[in-house]
Amino acid sequence: MPTSTSFTELYTEVQQFYARQMRQLDERKLEAYAETFTEDAEFGHTPGREPARTRAGIAADLHEFHKRFENDPVQRRHWFNMIDLEPQDDGSIRSTCYALVITTRPGGKPDIAPSCVVRDVIVRGADGGLLLRSRKVEHDQLF
Amino acid sequence: MPTSTSFTELYTEVQQFYARQMRQLDERKLEAYAETFTEDAEFGHTPGREPARTRAGIAADLHEFHKRFENDPVQRRHWFNMIDLEPQDDGSIRSTCYALVITTRPGGKPDIAPSCVVRDVIVRGADGGLLLRSRKVEHDQLF
Amino acid sequence: MPTSTSFTELYTEVQQFYARQMRQLDERKLEAYAETFTEDAEFGHTPGREPARTRAGIAADLHEFHKRFENDPVQRRHWFNMIDLEPQDDGSIRSTCYALVITTRPGGKPDIAPSCVVRDVIVRGADGGLLLRSRKVEHDQLF
Repeated sequence: MPTSTSFTELYTEVQQFYARQMRQLDERKLEAYAETFTEDAEFGHTPGREPARTRAGIAADLHEFHKRFENDPVQRRHWFNMIDLEPQDDGSIRSTCYALVITTRPGGKPDIAPSCVVRDVIVRGADGGLLLRSRKVEHDQLF
Repeated sequence: MPTSTSFTELYTEVQQFYARQMRQLDERKLEAYAETFTEDAEFGHTPGREPARTRAGIAADLHEFHKRFENDPVQRRHWFNMIDLEPQDDGSIRSTCYALVITTRPGGKPDIAPSCVVRDVIVRGADGGLLLRSRKVEHDQLF
Repeated sequence: MPTSTSFTELYTEVQQFYARQMRQLDERKLEAYAETFTEDAEFGHTPGREPARTRAGIAADLHEFHKRFENDPVQRRHWFNMIDLEPQDDGSIRSTCYALVITTRPGGKPDIAPSCVVRDVIVRGADGGLLLRSRKVEHDQLF
């Protein structure tokens, strides 16, 4: 059956949420990025690396992860697309989407890797806005 | 003039439809992918190759096409974006969008090719959901 | 708080606007592309190059810019994604999005560069449709 108004509004809201959230990460606003998760959230961004837990843990993990770029100036861009939303009975929303990480160094051409599938569980926070309860990133080169 | 509510809902519905449809293809759920077409649909995905016709024909054609990957493990991802919808007087919808095929092999970096333009004719099925009456894929490297 | 209906409609309208606008540019319909700007608009697409001003100036600048492709057959595709909209008090809309330029030559694979951030100011024209009052494109390789 045709899409409902509420699904339409949710779908747009998720697109807008991802756009702002991932630009915060790409601009190294790591605390702002961590605040897009619930307090008790879990975030697994790299296979083989233990998922980060809680907002403070996510921010700490990202500061640690970004140390690799201290002597390697890069501009990263996270592209999310092909968003498939499945609202759940408990009010949460399962979101599955594709992601590409686009990395540019001064004077260079973009390096586009990895290709990923992102699996999010989204909930509403106290102010009615969206928050991630969990995010799991799967990498296509590992199979 | 500003976008109407019905166009907004349709636009979102098409984005959600493409996300799920193309993940089905990328996960090799070829029968499920074929079921996103009408029974009498036409699907031309490769220039110089005869378009597949009917759901059964589309599924058979895709099984044949995917044999090339039997000894070549790949994870493909179809990205659709820049969707331009034109509702028609007969109730069908013309959709023109850009597509990239992203192919990753174990341990490797994504190979991104080809760049395409996809031309769909979308209709509503008996249950009110979207179906493709036709899909034609044009490849940018051929001109 | 959750997204409003008017924001949802605007977000979809901007996606549809970008899809058609950028395909016009990619198909070298330069006058049609220029008409997506206001009469007094400013468009800076390349760092170090003076921004073009007015519709006529934008069309002239693009004709000049495209001369580089006269003896170099290319099919370009502009991908816009990760759209972040901020409606302003004066009725205009700030749009920040990511962009990739995908260039394919006959028989070749896509060349994907540059990666950009696009900063638009969008307004409504006399007929209620969207127009760009300004567009500034920042290139990721320059930092």
